[in-house]
Amino acid sequence: MSKSIFYHAGCPVCVSAEHDIVNLAGAENVEVVNIGEDRSRIPEAENAGVRSVPAMVTPNGNVLHINFGASMEDVKG
Amino acid sequence: MSKSIFYHAGCPVCVSAEHDIVNLAGAENVEVVNIGEDRSRIPEAENAGVRSVPAMVTPNGNVLHINFGASMEDVKG
Repeated sequence: MSKSIFYHAGCPVCVSAEHDIVNLAGAENVEVVNIGEDRSRIPEAENAGVRSVPAMVTPNGNVLHINFGASMEDVKG
Repeated sequence: MSKSIFYHAGCPVCVSAEHDIVNLAGAENVEVVNIGEDRSRIPEAENAGVRSVPAMVTPNGNVLHINFGASMEDVKG
């Protein structure tokens, strides 16, 4: 099974959702990317359709925006 | 492991998210409830903190609002 990618930016909403998603899917199935720290991956997230964080991109390319922590504009600052 | 409960109301956004979540967590770990059809479970969803669908309530009681299909007010009609 391909991995899902969970993008977040370290906000409290993000961290809470990360724990829930990793518990649900299993840590081995989810790559966690902090785009607040690893800013080189912001374009990749935007290209995948991520408009706010936390969000998860599934192996088939769907984007699940989970709750609302911050917009991509806020992350880019 | 306790089950998560995925609440939806049959909308296209809901169905898409349902497939993604079931693929991610495994069908045996998620109870899927259509509160558009099974309206008796609307109060339970609201008490759990669900404000829009699709949403998932995790075993520890966190609510993950996923994308946005419809508000609870719309579901109640």
